[in-house]
Amino acid sequence: MPSFQTVRGMRDLLAEEAEVLNFVMSKARETAKLYGYREVITPVVEPYELLSAKAGEEIRSRMFTFKDLGNRTVALRPEFTASIARLATGALKNEPKPLRTLAVGSVYRYDEPQRGRYREFYQSDYEIVGVSNPEADAEIILLTDRLMRAVGLRNYAFKVGHIGVIRGILSQENVDEKTQNAILQLMDKREFEKAFQLVKSVACLSTLRGLLTLKSDNAFDTVGRLRKHVEGYPNASASVEDLQKILKIVTEHQCPIATVEPTFSRGLEYYTGMIFEVYIPELDIALGGGGRYDRLIEAFGGEPTPATGVAHGLDRIVMAMRMQKTTPTTQNKKRVAVIPAKEEVKGEALRISQMLREAGVSVELEVMGRKMNKALEDADRRRIDFAVIVGERELEQGSVVLRDLAKREQAVVTISNLAKRINPEY
Amino acid sequence: MPSFQTVRGMRDLLAEEAEVLNFVMSKARETAKLYGYREVITPVVEPYELLSAKAGEEIRSRMFTFKDLGNRTVALRPEFTASIARLATGALKNEPKPLRTLAVGSVYRYDEPQRGRYREFYQSDYEIVGVSNPEADAEIILLTDRLMRAVGLRNYAFKVGHIGVIRGILSQENVDEKTQNAILQLMDKREFEKAFQLVKSVACLSTLRGLLTLKSDNAFDTVGRLRKHVEGYPNASASVEDLQKILKIVTEHQCPIATVEPTFSRGLEYYTGMIFEVYIPELDIALGGGGRYDRLIEAFGGEPTPATGVAHGLDRIVMAMRMQKTTPTTQNKKRVAVIPAKEEVKGEALRISQMLREAGVSVELEVMGRKMNKALEDADRRRIDFAVIVGERELEQGSVVLRDLAKREQAVVTISNLAKRINPEY
Repeated sequence: MPSFQTVRGMRDLLAEEAEVLNFVMSKARETAKLYGYREVITPVVEPYELLSAKAGEEIRSRMFTFKDLGNRTVALRPEFTASIARLATGALKNEPKPLRTLAVGSVYRYDEPQRGRYREFYQSDYEIVGVSNPEADAEIILLTDRLMRAVGLRNYAFKVGHIGVIRGILSQENVDEKTQNAILQLMDKREFEKAFQLVKSVACLSTLRGLLTLKSDNAFDTVGRLRKHVEGYPNASASVEDLQKILKIVTEHQCPIATVEPTFSRGLEYYTGMIFEVYIPELDIALGGGGRYDRLIEAFGGEPTPATGVAHGLDRIVMAMRMQKTTPTTQNKKRVAVIPAKEEVKGEALRISQMLREAGVSVELEVMGRKMNKALEDADRRRIDFAVIVGERELEQGSVVLRDLAKREQAVVTISNLAKRINPEY
Repeated sequence: MPSFQTVRGMRDLLAEEAEVLNFVMSKARETAKLYGYREVITPVVEPYELLSAKAGEEIRSRMFTFKDLGNRTVALRPEFTASIARLATGALKNEPKPLRTLAVGSVYRYDEPQRGRYREFYQSDYEIVGVSNPEADAEIILLTDRLMRAVGLRNYAFKVGHIGVIRGILSQENVDEKTQNAILQLMDKREFEKAFQLVKSVACLSTLRGLLTLKSDNAFDTVGRLRKHVEGYPNASASVEDLQKILKIVTEHQCPIATVEPTFSRGLEYYTGMIFEVYIPELDIALGGGGRYDRLIEAFGGEPTPATGVAHGLDRIVMAMRMQKTTPTTQNKKRVAVIPAKEEVKGEALRISQMLREAGVSVELEVMGRKMNKALEDADRRRIDFAVIVGERELEQGSVVLRDLAKREQAVVTISNLAKRINPEY
């Protein structure tokens, strides 16, 4: 039988890679706790109908969809928001509002694999359901800012837009929702000319085209010019005021806003309000993004319920950390190998291992029955910190040999002092 | 659009349920660290060929199998061992032996849903690759014992058997491997008569049948009688000696062995040596199980490599904890609601929230713009510990009102003392 590989676009995370991803997940959970978001664990497999309903054609066509043995059409989740909307219309319907949730785990999209893009990737997803106020959108940006800081990233900055401005213009010009969605999807891909071809009205076209000229490095400058630009479009104007309020809050708390981009759109078609993404200068793909989706929960059979949220690309955050050489501040616990000098003291070696483990020491017991030299060589290769050598002579005095493998020093140590000698904090 | 449900057999884990599962996962990771097992994160989706190769017909027929958009036949992993064997023959082939790995996550089987059985469920999986010694099998049992204790379970006990005894008898009587697998699968379902019908030789049948009479409550008693019973079957005898050694080690470390069962078999067909499961008296389904599989890695194209491992059913452990009323010892951090008394102090309320979060306090900011009464009522419903009421008058003195919602007491507190007043440990 030939040796096997992972499915194309999927990968194993080994050693440090798994540790760093776990570190980022722990920071995501810590951030959720600080902001009062409670974790929910939802299935990887969901009804196709649920996942496809409002995802947009782009994502829908790249879902892992299949029939289960009961002939149900199901799919692997391409994101978390649909599952949270399902909860908000079902099991969590009667929970006090706002409902603040965190979900962490893997999501699936059949994209062409490339740097930072996999078919199985990891997200932390925060949603706040039941609030239409700009304070909720600001909170989502602020907690993203907190997570970026918590994992040690530098020079990250936010790109912000507002789907309500674009939809406000299009609705007033009687562009139907389906065409609006198509236009927004094209704008997401920055195919503006193609997008504009779907617009019939000349006035509308000129207003849309004008949006392209408003982007600048100064957030409030852009908002000021945008305000003027959409005069006469009341819904678009209201969206500009909403955007202004959100920006005011987050900039007061030192959130770095790189650009406000009036033509900014995102792939998912359920957005209705403020949208944003966060970047570092070294990487041209977003580390996270989200926005307001006030009509999704209603579309899923719930009461009309405003909501806003964000998903962070954890693999990309790990990649960004690597690029910025940000070492995760995980505990560097000492690793210990316990090696019996001969067959007869194997039992004693295990007893000492168990005692050290009870004291919180990470112990790799020599279970292969190798000679001392081989076992020590192996411990060196694994970059183990200490070897505990269990020999008959020392045992008679209730002692063992403790060898510092980096310093190449060793000493006879009483067994009862062993844990403390390995790590004075024990 | 109707409201959606989860796919049959899959479920959402909400609030405490998610917290308890996360608690068990953290204990699984802690146990791995103490025993020197490093975590790997492998894909949920794997090649069908990999997962089906040695899983056994029982599991193979209940896998979630489908074609991806590239027409590859893939499946959702029904367990972790095949993925670890893939790593051991591939990416981790040249790592020093023994290779000790942990994997934690969801696995998938299309079983009929019932109490403690879901189509998506969670496992922690430990494997030790490259060691044939009984010390390795003992280590797998000992770390399972440690995990059971770490999550707070009581009165759990192990059931132990040895596939090498059964295979030793069958091989010597020239029963081919395919028939051996069929017999073992039937024995796993306790369909002994059906299993025995597949045996042609009368001598073999009588030896097998005799195994049924050897089970007892005394592990070493059973082993002694088993030793006599298989005299004349050298491979089976060697397996009995192996079993004796493993049992000696684990019982010396107070592992509770409930029974040694010579006819004990498990669903996966790759086992070759000692097998075991762990139970609590309140529940008739295993909380975890595993065993030795010395020929799997070879079957996957690697060098002949002995290995042994265990998978713990984390949902079942959660269920067992609930039955034994074992409260997880998670940190009970205080939860705080920050409520602005009026519109004008919203900014100040957010500033105070951010300050508290920096100090590690879990803060839910009132972002719905509700009146004080409503906001306090809501905080009560959520069982929040403290409300921080931000009012203009107190702000002038650099203070806020801190209200203990359980005690229904309140006091004016200086903002700089707030975190300490909420939790003296900050």
